Amino acid sequence: MSLIVQKYGGSSVADAEGVKRVARRIVETKRAGHDVCVVVSAMGDSTDDLIDLANKVSPEPPARELDMLLTAGERISMAVLAMAIADLGMEARSFTGSQAGVITDAEHGRARILDVTPGRITQALADGHIAIVAGFQGVSQTTKDITTLGRGGSDTTATALAAALKADVCEIYTDVDGVFTADPRILPAARKLDVISCEEMLDLAANGSKILHLRCVEYARRYGIPLHVRSSWSRHPGTLILDDPYGEGSDMEAPIITGIAHDLSEAKITAVGVPDELGKAADIFTAIADAGVSIDMIVQNVSAGDTGRTDISFTLPQAEGTKALQALQALKSSIGFTELLYNDKIGKLSLIGAGMRTTPGISAKLFRALADASINIDLISTSEIRVSVVTRSDQLEAAVRAAHTAFGLDSTEGEAIVYGGTGR
Amino acid sequence: MSLIVQKYGGSSVADAEGVKRVARRIVETKRAGHDVCVVVSAMGDSTDDLIDLANKVSPEPPARELDMLLTAGERISMAVLAMAIADLGMEARSFTGSQAGVITDAEHGRARILDVTPGRITQALADGHIAIVAGFQGVSQTTKDITTLGRGGSDTTATALAAALKADVCEIYTDVDGVFTADPRILPAARKLDVISCEEMLDLAANGSKILHLRCVEYARRYGIPLHVRSSWSRHPGTLILDDPYGEGSDMEAPIITGIAHDLSEAKITAVGVPDELGKAADIFTAIADAGVSIDMIVQNVSAGDTGRTDISFTLPQAEGTKALQALQALKSSIGFTELLYNDKIGKLSLIGAGMRTTPGISAKLFRALADASINIDLISTSEIRVSVVTRSDQLEAAVRAAHTAFGLDSTEGEAIVYGGTGR
Repeated sequence: MSLIVQKYGGSSVADAEGVKRVARRIVETKRAGHDVCVVVSAMGDSTDDLIDLANKVSPEPPARELDMLLTAGERISMAVLAMAIADLGMEARSFTGSQAGVITDAEHGRARILDVTPGRITQALADGHIAIVAGFQGVSQTTKDITTLGRGGSDTTATALAAALKADVCEIYTDVDGVFTADPRILPAARKLDVISCEEMLDLAANGSKILHLRCVEYARRYGIPLHVRSSWSRHPGTLILDDPYGEGSDMEAPIITGIAHDLSEAKITAVGVPDELGKAADIFTAIADAGVSIDMIVQNVSAGDTGRTDISFTLPQAEGTKALQALQALKSSIGFTELLYNDKIGKLSLIGAGMRTTPGISAKLFRALADASINIDLISTSEIRVSVVTRSDQLEAAVRAAHTAFGLDSTEGEAIVYGGTGR
Repeated sequence: MSLIVQKYGGSSVADAEGVKRVARRIVETKRAGHDVCVVVSAMGDSTDDLIDLANKVSPEPPARELDMLLTAGERISMAVLAMAIADLGMEARSFTGSQAGVITDAEHGRARILDVTPGRITQALADGHIAIVAGFQGVSQTTKDITTLGRGGSDTTATALAAALKADVCEIYTDVDGVFTADPRILPAARKLDVISCEEMLDLAANGSKILHLRCVEYARRYGIPLHVRSSWSRHPGTLILDDPYGEGSDMEAPIITGIAHDLSEAKITAVGVPDELGKAADIFTAIADAGVSIDMIVQNVSAGDTGRTDISFTLPQAEGTKALQALQALKSSIGFTELLYNDKIGKLSLIGAGMRTTPGISAKLFRALADASINIDLISTSEIRVSVVTRSDQLEAAVRAAHTAFGLDSTEGEAIVYGGTGR
């Protein structure tokens, strides 16, 4: 008998039929002899509907009250899911984040989990019940107010609960079959991965893969919780995310390239004609940091000739572009650059693989593949297990395809991998 | 400066516009220098929508989970109301029943309040905030599960909170202008009452008046909380409900007749030919009580001649008719009655007034007025301050009109009282 934490996203419980389908799946797991704790998101688009309602009464609703409002979404889905399970003859108990002991800081809208004290969940499981926990929410340690965890919150709830309960596995149910070598929506030849390391998954998530949020994977790695990303629409095994699947005693060899992430949500800012003097880069990035903007890649070009000036480029989320431009524009004369360029028609491709550490020549092979496909590279950045390049946004898909083929990742089955669900 | 508890029902906050209107009203009260604690129901029909959702996944949802589900309704309305208040420049904090310290027993769907420990509300008021509390809900003392209070729950929450906070008044906002001498929907000549005693209001509520629930009035009387029933659509003062407005030191005289309640929700069961022996009535009403059916009026006819048999009639909620009939049918031979009659085409009229105690002849005058209007009386029951009669349901409105006129209750303004809102 195992203790299994299962997380179902909003698209899996979008309506009453979805709730019933998920309930059957949960009951099957329980009937197979396992203890089951379920984390559930709000039904379908209900969170958006609540945000619309909030905006009808206030253009900028207070964060505390917005959290109070939005947490109604999971309250509804978890209660309805518990009812659907009861209708199948099993006893289920729903618990809010607060009742489940999800203790957070007081940062409304993006609270961090400080502790999980799941006494009521442990008791419910000991009583033979299925425990249903509201994802995405907790309670502030200091103010006792209800908080939400922000993006990827329900996945994080599931992983944190799995850690606190010492679960054998945390299953993240979604509408794709698992983690793929590339996004199957743009590359039908992408292959599903059976196993991936937390480290690789973190790099995928940080570089545009939407399948799991960074925080959830970080949590799983820190507490050594095996994650299993799989489809709620099929019975196929999905992708196991393990702390160190290639470590000592493992018979698995780290693949050179595990997968390719792509990201169209970034923009590039270039400060042109920055005086090539000590401390100018520091000035620029201090201003950016002070504006609360997080940046990704940074490239400083070599000074052209003896002009004594250089260009500094960096990428950042498009949503923060205006803020960054304003912060820099205010310092134009003190820093002494001649102009600012802004480009949000860029795409980033990242090649990720733990085997890169011991295999030279990966970057060269990538650049060659892109050149052969007539794709120009704008920026480059590398880490131990990752090579990222920025291209024109309209060339990004072609870049993913070229790299996928060049590194032998294409499915050998000669057909598209079928992946279920709504494609969301 | 007073401490005022205000309760707004679902029809007052049916949509974003309603929420904003209520928010303005609350802010006005606060700006006038009062401390304000607001109790709010779920928006419009949202509770019904949640029940529909529950029924889509389970014909008989577990009561614990139904409570978890339904309490999402007030969570939404209170958070949105707090946002609307913030948008007007005032700080408001919303609190769930549990956070507000509404401690109940564990009877899901009809929990009783055991205690109110409003520490967080007191603190919020001390901080100068407007406190918004979810009506209708609490938390079980023993199981720590979320409970709902059942019908009239939000009014009861407001009164209980007012008692715990030692509020100066508890204002119940609704969509009529106050308590009327009769239901103005069927009797446009009904007059709004300025004052009524708790005792009279209890009798009105127990006999079909929907304006306040019995439990709420009981609570107000027990703790001496003045209730003020008024319209959220107008600025007119409504009806004050006071523990003893006619007592010593008051210059008010108790009116002989305060008002007329009517009720179409009851049915009558008659057991025909019950042997006129000791203990037969006890057998019948023990069976009814064991079936969990609450009864209202009981009439035992005098035995006709020397047949040694009698008829026993009683009224009960129509919704419990089948249950009562089944319980009695099972005892037909042991009790020895010849047949059971069931009639749900009945209506009850109740004349209520604290002055009845000291004024003889009220019943006679009522019976005369009804006879003059050709209305047949089926059953009669009386208490110290009430006379109730059962008529045919299709004659009930005419009976209310006749009695209202006979006792001089008709408005002297010669026109219908305007009452706002949707008439719900």
